[in-house]
Amino acid sequence: MKNHDIQQHEIDLALGGLRNEIDAIDARIVALLADRQDVVCRVAALKKKHNLPIYHPAREEDLISRRRQQAMDTGLDPDFIEEVYRAVIRRSRVTQTRSMALSSVRPEALVLLVGGKGEMGRYFEACFQRAGYRVRILSKDNWSDAHALCDGIDLAMVGVPIDVTCRVIRDIGPFLPPQAVLCDITSIKVKPLEAMLKAHAGPVIGLHPLFGPTTSSLDKQIIVATPGRDNAACQWVLDQFSIWGGVIVRSDAGEHDDIMGIVQALRHFATFAFGQFLKRRQVSLSRTLEFSSPIYRLEIGMVGRLFAQDADLYSEIIFASEERRELLKDFLKSISENQEMLEKADKALFQSEFQKIAEWFGPFSEQAMRESTFLIDRLIERF
Amino acid sequence: MKNHDIQQHEIDLALGGLRNEIDAIDARIVALLADRQDVVCRVAALKKKHNLPIYHPAREEDLISRRRQQAMDTGLDPDFIEEVYRAVIRRSRVTQTRSMALSSVRPEALVLLVGGKGEMGRYFEACFQRAGYRVRILSKDNWSDAHALCDGIDLAMVGVPIDVTCRVIRDIGPFLPPQAVLCDITSIKVKPLEAMLKAHAGPVIGLHPLFGPTTSSLDKQIIVATPGRDNAACQWVLDQFSIWGGVIVRSDAGEHDDIMGIVQALRHFATFAFGQFLKRRQVSLSRTLEFSSPIYRLEIGMVGRLFAQDADLYSEIIFASEERRELLKDFLKSISENQEMLEKADKALFQSEFQKIAEWFGPFSEQAMRESTFLIDRLIERF
Repeated sequence: MKNHDIQQHEIDLALGGLRNEIDAIDARIVALLADRQDVVCRVAALKKKHNLPIYHPAREEDLISRRRQQAMDTGLDPDFIEEVYRAVIRRSRVTQTRSMALSSVRPEALVLLVGGKGEMGRYFEACFQRAGYRVRILSKDNWSDAHALCDGIDLAMVGVPIDVTCRVIRDIGPFLPPQAVLCDITSIKVKPLEAMLKAHAGPVIGLHPLFGPTTSSLDKQIIVATPGRDNAACQWVLDQFSIWGGVIVRSDAGEHDDIMGIVQALRHFATFAFGQFLKRRQVSLSRTLEFSSPIYRLEIGMVGRLFAQDADLYSEIIFASEERRELLKDFLKSISENQEMLEKADKALFQSEFQKIAEWFGPFSEQAMRESTFLIDRLIERF
Repeated sequence: MKNHDIQQHEIDLALGGLRNEIDAIDARIVALLADRQDVVCRVAALKKKHNLPIYHPAREEDLISRRRQQAMDTGLDPDFIEEVYRAVIRRSRVTQTRSMALSSVRPEALVLLVGGKGEMGRYFEACFQRAGYRVRILSKDNWSDAHALCDGIDLAMVGVPIDVTCRVIRDIGPFLPPQAVLCDITSIKVKPLEAMLKAHAGPVIGLHPLFGPTTSSLDKQIIVATPGRDNAACQWVLDQFSIWGGVIVRSDAGEHDDIMGIVQALRHFATFAFGQFLKRRQVSLSRTLEFSSPIYRLEIGMVGRLFAQDADLYSEIIFASEERRELLKDFLKSISENQEMLEKADKALFQSEFQKIAEWFGPFSEQAMRESTFLIDRLIERF
């Protein structure tokens, strides 16, 4: 027993020494990351002074390539170094974006947020204010001042619930200065765009920001832009979103609405129905999580995530239009057609259906496999 | 114009200088990460020599805390440093696990893999062989040698398709040495465990590894263990999985099967039905991805991922038992009960259902929101 204690003591000493070495290396790495941040701040100041864009994909890829090469030269796994540097670069971009968020494309402009008391309204209020814009808010409470609030504005942004969007646009139209840009941020685009073109003779553009009010940075977030009238006059609004880090995707309103039926309505409805069934069966979520592979944790997290959000928002998305409800009814029909396969335990039918769908998905499946494997590794790492 | 060129040249020079500073810092960081890996290898060698566990949660959390403190002291965001260090620590664990994979709990043991030509069989063949075990393979092709192959074995691991598992167990039973451990790796547990207890009078344990043959490391992967008979004699098998980095979750076979009905069958069926509908509607996946928020990319990736895998495997999971088919039929019933709500565009009903489900999900929703937000940030970073 005594010998065993002595040996244990020696192991502890050796392990302690090695751990101290690791700690010393780590302290130097973090000190270098702090130095790096200082230099990045100087780059940001220079870019801001000369109005240069933050995101520089070629420079980022070049930087990653060089670190990968160094990793290979020194016996490190290049994928590991790439992973670390993706995090470092993203942070560098966020640092720069935060400093750029203060810069404004049209510093003198006056912005009216219609529905500015909603969550998205407050989100954009903060963005515009930080960038130095003058911002006014029009809501139900001060609607009687609408005419005065519209006086002299350069941009009116309508962010109100879907079912009142067209009415609000119609009502605000007559008060707008002719040169003011009118835009909306509704998650459907055909009808609001029609309403805007009818209500206002000046520049019009439909926007759909594909993110919610909890998004911490606009970095790489997508904003769909559906042009209405006088694109040149609308351009500064898009430029402002780009400076904040957003990515503008152009589309026509009809295509936008079709795609969002799938991307939003169908997906959220399917998730809703899944959660509804878990409740119906009174499944013990916590016990299933103990048993679960990371990918299950991720998928059940996607379901849970929906129900942490606003019922009203999702009912708006799902019931936005007649076409969407038809799409969802078609989904119910499609899923119920599997009834007989289940009754008969028809494995062969399942397999042949599966193969056909796999062929239809094509190379996307392999890509999805790679992307989701990457994320699962992150999930294992974190929890 | 000339002035503009001169100014541009000066900006380029200044930016170039700062970028060189960043590159020099980065080169030093990567060099330190290589030094760190060398020390980690020495730690691994020491642990291996003395059979110490790799995963040391307290040491990891302590290390993270100290780097967070240093970050705060030097003006860095501690969350950023934690993110970088989670990646560094995971890599350190993988480095150590790879080296430990060579160590064996029972170096003299003889392992028979029944169904060793399947994908999971080949996976475990590689694991056991790397760790220095003697491994034999029994498959359809050499079934006539079964008796001889069972001679002197310490472990028989059955990994064959679900529908033949019980028959194979019945057939192999009489050939097993009385002291050999019999286990299976089927994704259902009640029936195989019953069959094993009946076929073999010695130590029995049911296992379900919750990962597929493409998993690169067993690090933190879950293996469900459902005890059968003589746990003490089975323990070394579980210890071996732990040394490879796996996490053992104990359960009884009935609970396992109930939970897996939800975790695997229901989830995969719902994903299958979603993909089936995308094909039915001939949705343009690539265009939807251009329009998509990171969370949509993630969700559609989960669907695509399913179809990159084996139809046979999924049909086995879905049609594993009568109870599973009943569960899935109940799911079809549950989802179709939303038909009327869609017909009538009954937003109020949707919202009240949504609220009830949200209450039932409870605090899990908030946790899921946090976890998935973390992953979405990783996704934005990567792509």
